[in-house]
Amino acid sequence: MDACITPLRHGGLSLVQTTDFFYPLVDDPYMMGKIACSNVVSDLYAMGVTECDNMLMLLALSQKLTDKERDVVSPLMIRGFKDCAEEAGTSVNGGQTVVNPWMIIGGVATTVCQPNEFIMPDNAVVGDVLVLTKPLGTQVAVNAYQWLDQPERWNRIKLVVSEDDVRKAYQRAMFSMARLNRTGAHLMHKYNAHGATDVTGFGLLGHANNLAQIQKNEVGFVIHNLPIIAKMAAVSKACGNMFGLLQGHSAETSGGLLIALPREQAAAFCKDIEKQEGYQAWIIGIVEKGTRSARIIDKPRVIEVPAKEKDGELW
Amino acid sequence: MDACITPLRHGGLSLVQTTDFFYPLVDDPYMMGKIACSNVVSDLYAMGVTECDNMLMLLALSQKLTDKERDVVSPLMIRGFKDCAEEAGTSVNGGQTVVNPWMIIGGVATTVCQPNEFIMPDNAVVGDVLVLTKPLGTQVAVNAYQWLDQPERWNRIKLVVSEDDVRKAYQRAMFSMARLNRTGAHLMHKYNAHGATDVTGFGLLGHANNLAQIQKNEVGFVIHNLPIIAKMAAVSKACGNMFGLLQGHSAETSGGLLIALPREQAAAFCKDIEKQEGYQAWIIGIVEKGTRSARIIDKPRVIEVPAKEKDGELW
Repeated sequence: MDACITPLRHGGLSLVQTTDFFYPLVDDPYMMGKIACSNVVSDLYAMGVTECDNMLMLLALSQKLTDKERDVVSPLMIRGFKDCAEEAGTSVNGGQTVVNPWMIIGGVATTVCQPNEFIMPDNAVVGDVLVLTKPLGTQVAVNAYQWLDQPERWNRIKLVVSEDDVRKAYQRAMFSMARLNRTGAHLMHKYNAHGATDVTGFGLLGHANNLAQIQKNEVGFVIHNLPIIAKMAAVSKACGNMFGLLQGHSAETSGGLLIALPREQAAAFCKDIEKQEGYQAWIIGIVEKGTRSARIIDKPRVIEVPAKEKDGELW
Repeated sequence: MDACITPLRHGGLSLVQTTDFFYPLVDDPYMMGKIACSNVVSDLYAMGVTECDNMLMLLALSQKLTDKERDVVSPLMIRGFKDCAEEAGTSVNGGQTVVNPWMIIGGVATTVCQPNEFIMPDNAVVGDVLVLTKPLGTQVAVNAYQWLDQPERWNRIKLVVSEDDVRKAYQRAMFSMARLNRTGAHLMHKYNAHGATDVTGFGLLGHANNLAQIQKNEVGFVIHNLPIIAKMAAVSKACGNMFGLLQGHSAETSGGLLIALPREQAAAFCKDIEKQEGYQAWIIGIVEKGTRSARIIDKPRVIEVPAKEKDGELW
């Protein structure tokens, strides 16, 4: 499960909490703070929890930063983290800062809730469909963007992608990673989700497998469609086995919710989330009878997801 | 305050939580895990909270460890952390592990409690006394021990301390840092504590000042006695201004509780904690009328605290 659930001593309540921290992967400190916060709280959203009672912030400042750099970077990163917490309807009270060779940013998201506030992820049934709420390819986009300054790497992909494509994909990835999965969590309740997870470090297939393994019913997940940030499928292919994006292995940061929904509710879920947020969600697969594992079909359909105008609105 | 208190949406309950992480400072991975856990949960104990509902563990494994080293060190450190959590009556559910240039170990301690379960730290009154539940000098002891292998440093202190003294002080420091402040937290309720903090990175005077600053009454803290791990006062003096142990500036890790207690209760508190745990506590100062600050008198009495037999019982 994405967050731990601890029964409390008081009033039938449960403590749901999760922590995550990692190293910066975008060059905008403010957006990096937002991504870190969005990524932490996403584990609550994957459990259908929509309220976060408190956030702690975990920060390590790099000893390699000059004083000037530190004075510019750290307030921006902290502001991004706090602004995102505010969007999530919570606030940051507490945390810890150290000095470290590498920058680290992360946090702890905690909520105390009644049993009807979270959705156990293990109730998928045969006939459900799988919905994904953000496109794949964040890691590929972030790497391709870094390669703009590394001719040797760039030469490997420049035949399949333009510099402008890469910049757009990077923007799309950055805003996607900073976007909260909170609306998705709300709609999981409205459309009777049977379970969900969020797609992060283990890639789509890794997390689909993790979700399949814990199912109560003898089901299997079959994925037919891969919504991918535009051009990143081609970049991944050009890099051989490095990312494995089309095989579902490429790591994502602060990825979308992967939700098992009743077939008759899934289209309405996708329509509703797009109406509320302006971002598409996709039906990417089905729940069959199976042995609690997940697979991607032989030639999945790649859905090219373009950058949005709104992804640049802060620039 | 040592932990943040967030009012919850349910039943008049509050969320009390705290996080801390740092770099290893003893060479025994199992004890290091215990120290990290003890240090995190200590912030709850400083608030008089005796129950911890959940612990998360934060871990970074050094990329400089060989596979063999990592396979030995990390399970021991994790076991130490978990064993200490068990001593604290809680368990570790969740956390995050990354790879980093430096090792990091820490955690998050969370409790959900009713208002009578915590003690606000701001109620000291003139006439109270200050009690400290662990000796000072952990940083000096840890450094002196490391200097046994650094002739240049060792030469600076060998006139005032023997190798055996240093090894004993290091043992004392290690076991002191691994010891939970839980009994102290229990007894804060029994003996009507008016507020407390735990002594860590800012040293005795730093934390005494922090506690003094938040008092509701116009009080000041005056410290007369400094209980210090045996010989470490002499080591600190021999190092000039490096540590500032006698000035209250030397950092402590997982230090004792500094508690403002009614004068007539303090001796009973000290007697009780020694009876229950076999470790002494000391009345180190008084609460006077003042301007919400703390000071150490000109020539404080140094209490030399010897290593205990029991400090070596795991060796």
